[in-house]
Amino acid sequence: MAALQARRVLLTGSNRGIGLELVRQLLGGPHPPTHVFATCRDPEGERGKELRDLASKHPNLVLVKLDVANPSAIVNAAKIVEEKLNGAGLNLLINNAGIFTPVSLETVDSEEMIRAYKTNAVGPLLMAQAFLPLLKKAAQDSKEKRLSCNKAAIINISTLLGSIERTPESYFKPVISYRCSKAALNMLTRCQALTYSEAGILCVALHPGWVKTDMGTQEADLTVDTSVRGLLSVLPILSEKHSGMLLNWEGKAIPW
Amino acid sequence: MAALQARRVLLTGSNRGIGLELVRQLLGGPHPPTHVFATCRDPEGERGKELRDLASKHPNLVLVKLDVANPSAIVNAAKIVEEKLNGAGLNLLINNAGIFTPVSLETVDSEEMIRAYKTNAVGPLLMAQAFLPLLKKAAQDSKEKRLSCNKAAIINISTLLGSIERTPESYFKPVISYRCSKAALNMLTRCQALTYSEAGILCVALHPGWVKTDMGTQEADLTVDTSVRGLLSVLPILSEKHSGMLLNWEGKAIPW
Ligand SMILES: NC(=O)c1ccc[n+]([C@@H]2O[C@H](COP(=O)([O-])OP(=O)(O)OC[C@H]3O[C@@H](n4cnc5c(N)ncnc54)[C@H](OP(=O)(O)O)[C@@H]3O)[C@@H](O)[C@H]2O)c1
Ligand SMILES: NC(=O)c1ccc[n+]([C@@H]2O[C@H](COP(=O)([O-])OP(=O)(O)OC[C@H]3O[C@@H](n4cnc5c(N)ncnc54)[C@H](OP(=O)(O)O)[C@@H]3O)[C@@H](O)[C@H]2O)c1
Repeated sequence: MAALQARRVLLTGSNRGIGLELVRQLLGGPHPPTHVFATCRDPEGERGKELRDLASKHPNLVLVKLDVANPSAIVNAAKIVEEKLNGAGLNLLINNAGIFTPVSLETVDSEEMIRAYKTNAVGPLLMAQAFLPLLKKAAQDSKEKRLSCNKAAIINISTLLGSIERTPESYFKPVISYRCSKAALNMLTRCQALTYSEAGILCVALHPGWVKTDMGTQEADLTVDTSVRGLLSVLPILSEKHSGMLLNWEGKAIPW
Repeated sequence: MAALQARRVLLTGSNRGIGLELVRQLLGGPHPPTHVFATCRDPEGERGKELRDLASKHPNLVLVKLDVANPSAIVNAAKIVEEKLNGAGLNLLINNAGIFTPVSLETVDSEEMIRAYKTNAVGPLLMAQAFLPLLKKAAQDSKEKRLSCNKAAIINISTLLGSIERTPESYFKPVISYRCSKAALNMLTRCQALTYSEAGILCVALHPGWVKTDMGTQEADLTVDTSVRGLLSVLPILSEKHSGMLLNWEGKAIPW
């Protein structure tokens, strides 16, 4: 099986859950990236402790402060990363940060709808905008002809709960603000694939499965280790034909 | 062909375009409703003139001020309508108000993303919340067993541009804030169908076609007359099997 060889990777929401495990497995993999930019809201505070411990052992791990719900913070983070890359491009942007609130059609309000949308849909859009020059640079510098995660890619961590088609199966969890924001993220991914393919950038939405994290709870199906191993084995097989699709952690397509 | 017989109908964004024509054709139809609540942002100003002219000829037309991007205005409008209904229910809620800005992935910003989401997705959600007691009342009072627009229904005016599946066909118009908000509206419609079917309320998303209005421009395919005739001939055929679907003005299903 092909291994992921992306040299320069950036992740959002990487201080716990799936994001933190992605950082761990990327650093421990057979071809660790030269740069892993692990971004989170509070790298210097309590919530960033595990990342700091990792960084003390891995000089290729760079912590960057980044709240994806704050547009100017995204622009600032892109400047910092650009400086650290020192002329090189960014191969892989993983939009992982997300929020989930257990609200139904009855209990949800306007603020909660917009809060979820800002983090889960608008954040990934602004991230791609801000890091686009670095992604383009990576695509230009790459010798690979075909779209791939080793060349230049945007991976949006979405969810089965964002599939409109499959909503009836999972509607015991109404989570309306989450579902609407992730359906919008799926639309965004499709549009990004159509817009950015010319620049050589692959865009895919991935569903990590139902995972034992703070969000998924301990009742979930998969350990975070299993989910992230799955996601990291899907990344290297992605090509043109997957761009603009929603796939699960085993690489299976999910309908919109 | 069955004609629409909904007695009490409410529409948003009814001062121009598709909304205004819906009001006109509802009033001129074979079974005009006893109440048409035509809501708009400015019924007393310049923008409400055509509605006021109509109201002077049709005593069953009631104008109500309503900005769907303003949550407290929605609650107030529901109170006003409840009083006017004087114990009766509301059979049909048509969420028609919408905004469209020609922005691409490159030009869109956070404010525009949220502005479109508020009007096109959150507005319809809050409308259904606020008018739910009146819709439930209509369902309870109805002798019809099956879900129908004559009994109790929420119709969300969506668009082909909200279909993630069919995005590649129409991507010469990127309109990213619009597409994401309407994909979210489609998800909302599916969730509303699942939540409200027990209460006897049908929920469907309709695509009016590409229509010659301020939004559609004069380059569009359909006259507003043709589109609205189509929409009004689809409404009476809707039943359980359509609830939670996206259909076009000819009643054909559109994939998500
Ligand atoms: N777990 C599941 O079963 C499951 C299933 C499907 C999809 N997903 C998706 O997978 C992704 C990761 O989920 P998870 O299970 O790891 O969730 P989690 O354990 O709740 O962790 C969420 C992460 O996102 C970060 N985050 C939230 N808002 C942020 C913001 N505004 N800016 C920056 N970071 C922010 C959190 O940081 P803080 O520590 O600062 O809050 C945290 O690092 C999400 O996109 C989620 O929707 C999860
Ligand atoms: N025309 C098309 O080709 C087309 C295609 C697919 C779907 N649609 C959908 O059809 C619906 C109607 O479109 P249209 O072509 O008639 O558009 P339009 O001619 O631009 O009219 C839009 C209507 O929505 C109202 N509106 C906008 N924001 C509002 C708010 N916050 N509160 C209350 N009303 C608001 C406008 O009121 P003001 O006068 O106060 O601005 C106006 O009455 C929209 O949902 C649109 O997305 C249209």
